[in-house]
Amino acid sequence: MELPMARSAEVCLRISAILVLIVTTCVAAFDTQTELVLSVIEKKASYRDVNALKILVYVTSAAAGYNFLQLCKYPASAFFGRNLIKGSYINFAWVCFLLDQIAVYIIFAANSAAFQGCMVALTGVDAFQWMKACDKFTRFCIQMGGALLCGYLASILMALMASVSAYRLFSMYSPNWFLRLKTK
Amino acid sequence: MELPMARSAEVCLRISAILVLIVTTCVAAFDTQTELVLSVIEKKASYRDVNALKILVYVTSAAAGYNFLQLCKYPASAFFGRNLIKGSYINFAWVCFLLDQIAVYIIFAANSAAFQGCMVALTGVDAFQWMKACDKFTRFCIQMGGALLCGYLASILMALMASVSAYRLFSMYSPNWFLRLKTK
Repeated sequence: MELPMARSAEVCLRISAILVLIVTTCVAAFDTQTELVLSVIEKKASYRDVNALKILVYVTSAAAGYNFLQLCKYPASAFFGRNLIKGSYINFAWVCFLLDQIAVYIIFAANSAAFQGCMVALTGVDAFQWMKACDKFTRFCIQMGGALLCGYLASILMALMASVSAYRLFSMYSPNWFLRLKTK
Repeated sequence: MELPMARSAEVCLRISAILVLIVTTCVAAFDTQTELVLSVIEKKASYRDVNALKILVYVTSAAAGYNFLQLCKYPASAFFGRNLIKGSYINFAWVCFLLDQIAVYIIFAANSAAFQGCMVALTGVDAFQWMKACDKFTRFCIQMGGALLCGYLASILMALMASVSAYRLFSMYSPNWFLRLKTK
């Protein structure tokens, strides 16, 4: 029931995902720019202004923490003994599969929402009288674009990881009967 | 190599996904409202004004077509003969798995981007001087909210479908060796 190659693939993917997620969080959270608007009012743009960017910062830091917790399961299983019975191993694989799926969808959704926010800032929306913001806050927009690139890289890493969890779970089932365990 | 239950689950999921996707496309595409802005200028809000909504409409209709094509593989395989050799069956399962994964991520991203667009319309962004648009275009916003709900329902259906494809693919592999086929 142990898959050494799947395990090392998972550890590599999770560690790189954590690093990329931390970079994303930092780049987005420390992105501020102050500009004069209408020549009199001073406006400061930061991730707190746009809900989608706030959510992006929270979600990427939470995802980094989640991946770290998932990494902790290996020392924990070594400590508590690795000879888990087959039934509980299956349940654990289901939990990991579902959590990984949820995590990857949430991070993907947060990224796409932030991307849309940046697109509105780049192009503006005439019908709703939303002006372009990137003309004024150029450096802010460029830095946020970098954060989004990192975020998408993290999404891809986590999607690969979700596939590894799916492999682990579904390879225990029979190819001939739907949701029936293999007879060894 | 045939999984009747997995197949009926897939057919049910795909048909319901197609129906929900068509509803999403229609609700979003036929959502227009004309209002007076600043008491003089007449502005018409439609999905064409916000890039994210335009992309949502295109993506949901493309996803409906994709699911329809995937459904066609069953009559096609019955027509051309079902006794495919094992190797090509595996390749086909990989292609279906990858396409389903890509489709579900794209539809999820499009939905989240549109959701973010609607959130900006609901709340406005003070720093960038984006005004709330839903005060004026209330009916437009409510209808778009309905489209987004349908879109998320479709995303969930397609995520379940992607799990069925993953089951089909990975249940053919060994639980003890990573990416090695089962010896029957």
